[in-house]
Amino acid sequence: MAAPDFIARLAAICGKENVASGIDLSERRGLFHGNAAAFVKPGSTEEVSAVVRLAADLKMPIVPYGGNTGLVGGQTPEGLDNAIVISLARMDKVRALDPDGNTLIIDAGATLATARRAAESVDRLFPLSLASEESCTIGGNLATNAGGLAVLAYGSARDLVLGLEVVLADGRIWNGLRTLRKDNTGYDLKHVFTGSEGTLGIITAAALKLFARPRSVATVLAGVPSPDSALALFRRARTEAGPDVTAAELIPCFGIGLAAKKLGVPLPLKAQHDWYVLLELSSVSASGLDDILFRIVNGARVDGDIADSVTAGSPEAREKLWAYREIMSDAQGLAGASIKHDVAVPVKDVPAFIRAATKAALAAVPGCRPCPFGHLGDGNIHFNVTQPESMDAESFIARWDAMNAAVHEVVKSFNGSIAAEHGIGRLKRDLLPGIKSETELDLMRALKTALDPDNQLNPGVLLHKR
Amino acid sequence: MAAPDFIARLAAICGKENVASGIDLSERRGLFHGNAAAFVKPGSTEEVSAVVRLAADLKMPIVPYGGNTGLVGGQTPEGLDNAIVISLARMDKVRALDPDGNTLIIDAGATLATARRAAESVDRLFPLSLASEESCTIGGNLATNAGGLAVLAYGSARDLVLGLEVVLADGRIWNGLRTLRKDNTGYDLKHVFTGSEGTLGIITAAALKLFARPRSVATVLAGVPSPDSALALFRRARTEAGPDVTAAELIPCFGIGLAAKKLGVPLPLKAQHDWYVLLELSSVSASGLDDILFRIVNGARVDGDIADSVTAGSPEAREKLWAYREIMSDAQGLAGASIKHDVAVPVKDVPAFIRAATKAALAAVPGCRPCPFGHLGDGNIHFNVTQPESMDAESFIARWDAMNAAVHEVVKSFNGSIAAEHGIGRLKRDLLPGIKSETELDLMRALKTALDPDNQLNPGVLLHKR
Repeated sequence: MAAPDFIARLAAICGKENVASGIDLSERRGLFHGNAAAFVKPGSTEEVSAVVRLAADLKMPIVPYGGNTGLVGGQTPEGLDNAIVISLARMDKVRALDPDGNTLIIDAGATLATARRAAESVDRLFPLSLASEESCTIGGNLATNAGGLAVLAYGSARDLVLGLEVVLADGRIWNGLRTLRKDNTGYDLKHVFTGSEGTLGIITAAALKLFARPRSVATVLAGVPSPDSALALFRRARTEAGPDVTAAELIPCFGIGLAAKKLGVPLPLKAQHDWYVLLELSSVSASGLDDILFRIVNGARVDGDIADSVTAGSPEAREKLWAYREIMSDAQGLAGASIKHDVAVPVKDVPAFIRAATKAALAAVPGCRPCPFGHLGDGNIHFNVTQPESMDAESFIARWDAMNAAVHEVVKSFNGSIAAEHGIGRLKRDLLPGIKSETELDLMRALKTALDPDNQLNPGVLLHKR
Repeated sequence: MAAPDFIARLAAICGKENVASGIDLSERRGLFHGNAAAFVKPGSTEEVSAVVRLAADLKMPIVPYGGNTGLVGGQTPEGLDNAIVISLARMDKVRALDPDGNTLIIDAGATLATARRAAESVDRLFPLSLASEESCTIGGNLATNAGGLAVLAYGSARDLVLGLEVVLADGRIWNGLRTLRKDNTGYDLKHVFTGSEGTLGIITAAALKLFARPRSVATVLAGVPSPDSALALFRRARTEAGPDVTAAELIPCFGIGLAAKKLGVPLPLKAQHDWYVLLELSSVSASGLDDILFRIVNGARVDGDIADSVTAGSPEAREKLWAYREIMSDAQGLAGASIKHDVAVPVKDVPAFIRAATKAALAAVPGCRPCPFGHLGDGNIHFNVTQPESMDAESFIARWDAMNAAVHEVVKSFNGSIAAEHGIGRLKRDLLPGIKSETELDLMRALKTALDPDNQLNPGVLLHKR
């Protein structure tokens, strides 16, 4: 199998202290397991390049490893007995920061929090917003095209990229670290590597877009009678405030109850409502956001789309409203096990999707408790389903595939996505043939073959091993 | 060469009336010339597919043809004696319009104006803004990743794409017409085809993003002492108004004089200034844009970055200010021939670039009159150089390559782009090896080979014929 001296050869490249072997790299939830033949931490792009060349020579597969926060097993060398896992943890520096041009060049091993703090240090915003910001890395964010809470206003990770530096499958370095806003000189390679989950190249640095920091924010948590009303409220907000609508998050009654319990606080509104919408406006320039929000809320109330609402009167009050949303994933655990679906449909179809998926979930496991919440404004609903009260967790989890199949069938009927923001990884790889045409799979395989002909990079992730 | 019955076989696919032969397809400026062996107008995606299959069988190259407004020869079958040129002019329909989801699905043969009007019909904005909107087509816009006047606020054409339908080199149809805001299910194929100038596939339809229409606009034309002051003004505006700064266009004294002459109007400000900036704020929600603009202008005046300015008090006054900018390209003709450069540098480097490029241009052709104008906010300057007064047009144009080389050398020194928004086409194809690393060219060739192994699609455009 592996050459007997590969550890020594890796140590010669990266330094002995930066090479370990036989490390258990199971991910934190324990869903994916795997051992690295070698776990290496190169200190420079050149060292990454040398490691990749060596791996190619030795026919050992490469698995790029960021903050180990991925949810689809893309970072875990499961099923690979001779993988060289490359962590860029030592490559964590800001390379350049240009507040005039609103650009940041940063090593891929830097955490998202490092990027956000660098932007703040020059009064700018790097808007990507994920709960795992202190652990997850820019390289991982870009390799998975991460989503999060700011997509409605700023787009997904790929929308924030101006340029990349990538080590290719044969070890060559592509320096595409441009900070230009416009550049029409050929195929857009940065978009090829972004979101490719480490299967086409290893991102070693990125040139990112920065933004002016919003100076005014207006936030409301509204109790609404139905997802249709939630959508009507969002539509009204977009008509009134356009791109200043920077969040529109949906939470069901079941979910907000769990969130309140987990937080140890009362429900946010006097009565209990079937659905809740957390709506936020923010702007660099606008001074009258409170007035606009008042107009939106008032109009929705008159039309029956809002039953009751609470507006944040201070930054602290805003934090308290967001807490209900931010704790949702954790809070679900209070009600037992859940089966999760990271899906998206066209925004206009969110209400119909929730109705149909709820019906399908109940048919799959009678008594189950759907808890659909998330990014209404992006059409990205985390359709999580909690176990029936009368069932034990294990029996419920045993129905994982059946539940997935039922929910994903509904997603497909709306031309939706079964992997809206977490990616494919190993978790959903075998589902791809069910949702992509043979033509699209062929195109993806053609790109893989073109850029990684020997299937050296993250084999088994995203596409089937050949 | 071509099979004797190819016209009949094309007619069998598209109808006799939609196939012509021996047509002169020289582009309007007369810079590129070429004849089509056949000029076909398929009426459906299936017909495009059948034509491409036939072309592949006959080994006749395919040249996709939009509104013939491209400036780099990408649509002209120059040097090809047996090209089948495909026009999608008959595929010009709106397929679906969703104001809630802010999406539009439209045939690639529809003009940009058709897309804009469709959006307006449901009170939405499709922001791509080009002077040629009544002629240029959505397919051409996307194939070239068109830029224009709204890039600062809304991005280039590629940023407006949610999904594509593409006929591949072997005639297969890829249906990627998704309208999802989030979809992380594999490689992002829409970005591979967008901007590929018809060399990887033929875009037959697109799902596009729409936006709320801005309801308030504030516009100022300022006389400023230098490009540095222009940049300082832009920076100040971004700090005050963030994304509400929707235009920041630079015009030199020489240019505004020609524009005024061409328009038959006086200069916009009492005195003459070395440079002018057209700055615009717009917003869906903000009501106080006039106040913000006043604050920006006043601050810049106090700091010496603005010498004088005129603010538009009405939509008509705004039109009049924009007229100086919009007529710039045409107006330059009043002063004789010019050699043009569509280049971009990092925004912060625009002043230094203008200084260095001016020096280089004067060294290349003493007495020439540089007229750098355009999208300051994107770093995209049209560095157009007008002939010396003492030289005849022909002798000046004979210096085209030398002037290009001099200016592009300066662009390279700023890590800039020699094709910011018009693309590569045939015009700049031979310049690519001078600005791209061998690694990047290899990556581009690998994509071309993967998706069009027989070099059937638009050969000679973007990459060298093999």
